[in-house]
Amino acid sequence: MHEVITGEQIDAAEFTLRMGELVPLTKQLGIITTDFQDDGRATAYLGYDEKFVRPGGSISGPAIMALADVAMMAGITGKLGWTPMAMTSNLSTTFLSPPKLEGLIAETTALRFGRRLAFFSVTICSESDPATPVAHVTGTYAIPQAR
Amino acid sequence: MHEVITGEQIDAAEFTLRMGELVPLTKQLGIITTDFQDDGRATAYLGYDEKFVRPGGSISGPAIMALADVAMMAGITGKLGWTPMAMTSNLSTTFLSPPKLEGLIAETTALRFGRRLAFFSVTICSESDPATPVAHVTGTYAIPQAR
Amino acid sequence: MHEVITGEQIDAAEFTLRMGELVPLTKQLGIITTDFQDDGRATAYLGYDEKFVRPGGSISGPAIMALADVAMMAGITGKLGWTPMAMTSNLSTTFLSPPKLEGLIAETTALRFGRRLAFFSVTICSESDPATPVAHVTGTYAIPQAR
Amino acid sequence: MHEVITGEQIDAAEFTLRMGELVPLTKQLGIITTDFQDDGRATAYLGYDEKFVRPGGSISGPAIMALADVAMMAGITGKLGWTPMAMTSNLSTTFLSPPKLEGLIAETTALRFGRRLAFFSVTICSESDPATPVAHVTGTYAIPQAR
Repeated sequence: MHEVITGEQIDAAEFTLRMGELVPLTKQLGIITTDFQDDGRATAYLGYDEKFVRPGGSISGPAIMALADVAMMAGITGKLGWTPMAMTSNLSTTFLSPPKLEGLIAETTALRFGRRLAFFSVTICSESDPATPVAHVTGTYAIPQAR
Repeated sequence: MHEVITGEQIDAAEFTLRMGELVPLTKQLGIITTDFQDDGRATAYLGYDEKFVRPGGSISGPAIMALADVAMMAGITGKLGWTPMAMTSNLSTTFLSPPKLEGLIAETTALRFGRRLAFFSVTICSESDPATPVAHVTGTYAIPQAR
Repeated sequence: MHEVITGEQIDAAEFTLRMGELVPLTKQLGIITTDFQDDGRATAYLGYDEKFVRPGGSISGPAIMALADVAMMAGITGKLGWTPMAMTSNLSTTFLSPPKLEGLIAETTALRFGRRLAFFSVTICSESDPATPVAHVTGTYAIPQAR
Repeated sequence: MHEVITGEQIDAAEFTLRMGELVPLTKQLGIITTDFQDDGRATAYLGYDEKFVRPGGSISGPAIMALADVAMMAGITGKLGWTPMAMTSNLSTTFLSPPKLEGLIAETTALRFGRRLAFFSVTICSESDPATPVAHVTGTYAIPQAR
C-alpha cells in the first residue's frame, strides 16, 4: 500500500538553509522561515529590500508568491518532516492592498492534510500591521508517496 | 471622467529592459519578452539555468509564476503602451506536468480587456515541446485610471 | 466622487427572502442565511436533501458553490446593507473531503473590504463536524458605486 | 497497479440524461451537453430562463458554474467513457462581462489529462456572441482509480 513518507525532523533554521539550496531563488530573496508546527501551521518572513519595490510603493508580486510557497513547504515539513519532493499543484494569489515598504510576514494554516494532497491558506501582512492582509494565497501540494 | 491611460509605445526588447528595472527579480531570472501584440497576446521566455532546478527534475514554481506575470504585463503593454502602474490583482497557477530541463515559453492571451481590469490566460511549455503545457496561469490586472 | 452605496439595513431572515427572489436557484436549493455581522462575517446553511447527493456520498459541487456565494453576499449585506447589485468577479472553490450526508454550514470572513472590491474566505463544513472543512472558497465581489 | 477505469461509451444525449440523474440540479437548470470528443473537448448549453436573471441583466453565477462543471464532466466522458465517480477538486470561475439575456454556451478543452487528475479550461459565451467570453473557468478533476 501507499504510505506517506515521514521525513527527517529539522528545525526552522535548518529548513531555511535547505530550502535555500532546494530553490536558490528563495535564498536570493532572503526568505526566512521562523516557525512551523506539527499541524501544518508555519510562519515565514521576507525582509525589506529596495529591489522588491515597484512604482507606487507596492512590493513585487513574484517575491510575495515565493514567500507563500516557502511558508507552505514549511507547513508540510512541520507535519511530515523534511519533504523536498512535495510539489505545488496549484497556487492562487489575491493581492489585497499595497504592502508597506517593510518586511512581510506570511502565516499559513493547513485546511486539509490528506495522504496525497495538502491544502493551505496563507495570509501575508506587512510586519508592522498584522491586521491588514496585503495578500491571500491558497495552495495545493502533492505529497510524495512511498512505494 | 475616467479614461484609460495610453502609455508610450515600446518594443519587446525595450519592454524587457524596463521590466528588469521595474521588477529586478525578473532580470535576475533572465526573463525575456520576445513579442507582444495590440490585442494583448504576448510571449515571454525563461532560459534554462541550473539554479531553477528542483529535485525530481522540476523547475521551481516561483520562477514559473514570475514568467507568467511578465508575459501578462507584456500583453498589457501591447494593448495600452508601457503601463508600469498596472497591478496584479489575482494570479492563479496550476502546475500540470514537470518541465523538461530547458527553457520555458509563456504564451498569453487576453480574454477580457476592460477599462479597469484585464484578464489573461497563459500557457507555459518547455521550449522543445509546445504541445504539452507544464503550467497554466490566469491573471487579473488592475489598469491604472487617468484622473 | 464615487461613494459606496449604503443599502437598507435588513436582518438575516429578510436577506434569505430577498436572496431567494434575486437568485431563485438559491431558494430552490433551500439556502438559509442565519447570521451576518457588520464586519463582513456571515453564516449560511444548506439543508440536506437527497437530490444533492452524488454516488460515493458526496454532495454536488454546484450546490456547495451556490451556498458560498450566498454567504459572501450576506457578508456584503452585513457591512453595507442590502446591495443586490454587488457582482461576483471571481469565485474559486477547492473541494477538500467528501461531505457527510447532512446539512452544510458556510462561514465567511471578509479579508479585505475596499471601496470597489471585497474579498472573502469561506469555510464549508458538515453540520456535525465543524472541525473538518469539506470545501474552501475564496470570492471577489465588485461593489456598486454611487454616481 | 492502478489503472484508469474506462467507462461505458455513451453519446451526448445519453450523457445529458445521466448527468441529470447524477446531479439533479443540472436537470432543473436545463443544462444540455451537445458534444464531446475523445480528447476532452466538450460543449454544453444553458437555455435562457427568466429565473436565472439578476438585476442589471446578469445571469446568476451559480448557474454559470454548474454549466462549466457539466461541460468538464462531459470532457472526461469523451476521453474515458461514462465516469460518474470523477470528482471536482478545484473549480475557479472569473466573471468577465455581463451575459446577454439569452442562452449560454460553454466550450471546454483539456489542458492536461493525467492518470489521476484532469485539468480543463472553459470559456462561456452568450450564444449570439461567441467572441466575447462572459466567464472563464478552470477545473481540476480527480479520476477514479481501478483497484
